[in-house]
Amino acid sequence: MGSIAWKQLLLNALESNTHLKHVSYMQLATVGTNGKPSNRTVVFRGFQDNTDNILIDTDTRTRKIEELKLCSSAEICWYFTDSWEQFRINGHVDIIDGTNPDPLKLQQREKSWFASSLRSRSQYLWPNPGLPCLNEQAQIEIMLDPSVGPVDAFCLLVLEPDQVDYLNLKSNQRLTFRSSLTDAANKSWIVERVNP
Amino acid sequence: MGSIAWKQLLLNALESNTHLKHVSYMQLATVGTNGKPSNRTVVFRGFQDNTDNILIDTDTRTRKIEELKLCSSAEICWYFTDSWEQFRINGHVDIIDGTNPDPLKLQQREKSWFASSLRSRSQYLWPNPGLPCLNEQAQIEIMLDPSVGPVDAFCLLVLEPDQVDYLNLKSNQRLTFRSSLTDAANKSWIVERVNP
Repeated sequence: MGSIAWKQLLLNALESNTHLKHVSYMQLATVGTNGKPSNRTVVFRGFQDNTDNILIDTDTRTRKIEELKLCSSAEICWYFTDSWEQFRINGHVDIIDGTNPDPLKLQQREKSWFASSLRSRSQYLWPNPGLPCLNEQAQIEIMLDPSVGPVDAFCLLVLEPDQVDYLNLKSNQRLTFRSSLTDAANKSWIVERVNP
Repeated sequence: MGSIAWKQLLLNALESNTHLKHVSYMQLATVGTNGKPSNRTVVFRGFQDNTDNILIDTDTRTRKIEELKLCSSAEICWYFTDSWEQFRINGHVDIIDGTNPDPLKLQQREKSWFASSLRSRSQYLWPNPGLPCLNEQAQIEIMLDPSVGPVDAFCLLVLEPDQVDYLNLKSNQRLTFRSSLTDAANKSWIVERVNP
């Protein structure tokens, strides 16, 4: 039991729920600028290279960006509707927008941009999300050149987990994983079985 | 558009996704005692009488109780996987456990207890959730007398919404509802169409 990594459990859950369109939808909680909790659905865009870090694409104009700038902590709640498994992934979020000074991070952002569909990319050219809608037409058709790099509003979030709570509602098993404070390159996890 | 109530939209969404076992599962975000966000799946147990207030059953021994005692604000994120609709429901939570001094609230708690299945009720007799698991057997069989009232660990949460964000991913329509500060008995809502 002690050697089961949460990442492998998550990959298994993704695999066994892969036929569901919403399999990659998870809920990201942050602390609002008013100190109240904030919660929305986001899309899992994979892990960063060979790490445990979770990639999320977002729009710099959304409220979560200012929230994460004030408090970089976030918790993902990800429920798999077919296998009845829940992952609660707590960590801190690195915000990578076009003004980031790190060339490697900008490269990662560009990679995420080109990995997303043209339809997804065009949404970053839509009117400012959350602001009053001035146009009665909900559908906005924007043609985007497939070779054009990330637009200003495109932002990559990288969530680095430090605690994961896994719950299996079929077996009623629950595991808590905590990252140990060794060096970042050799992060290790301590697992404990807890009551569901 | 202005006269559409979010509660009716929610009832419609429940209706059109009713064939899904997970239709009543929603994610509840709170602020942790360490100031970090906390997020978990809970079950929608209906509305309180004829109000907009959302009922959630929980265990007094879970972390969310101490969190809500420190910060009563919470945000539900509820995504309907078939109709592609998301509701973000922000409000404050009233905690009703067995020590509550209000007889009407205790009555409401009892009503929720008897409305839940025997299987659900027996979970409140399980070992302390989140504590290290001492028993290797995950399944705990407890026979509960169906006529026995709520046990100590049973707690009713009543979330009173003051802001609701509705997003329809099929039509790309988004609406924000804010409760106006009139008297509590005659709460009214202001709706605004915003960019998705």
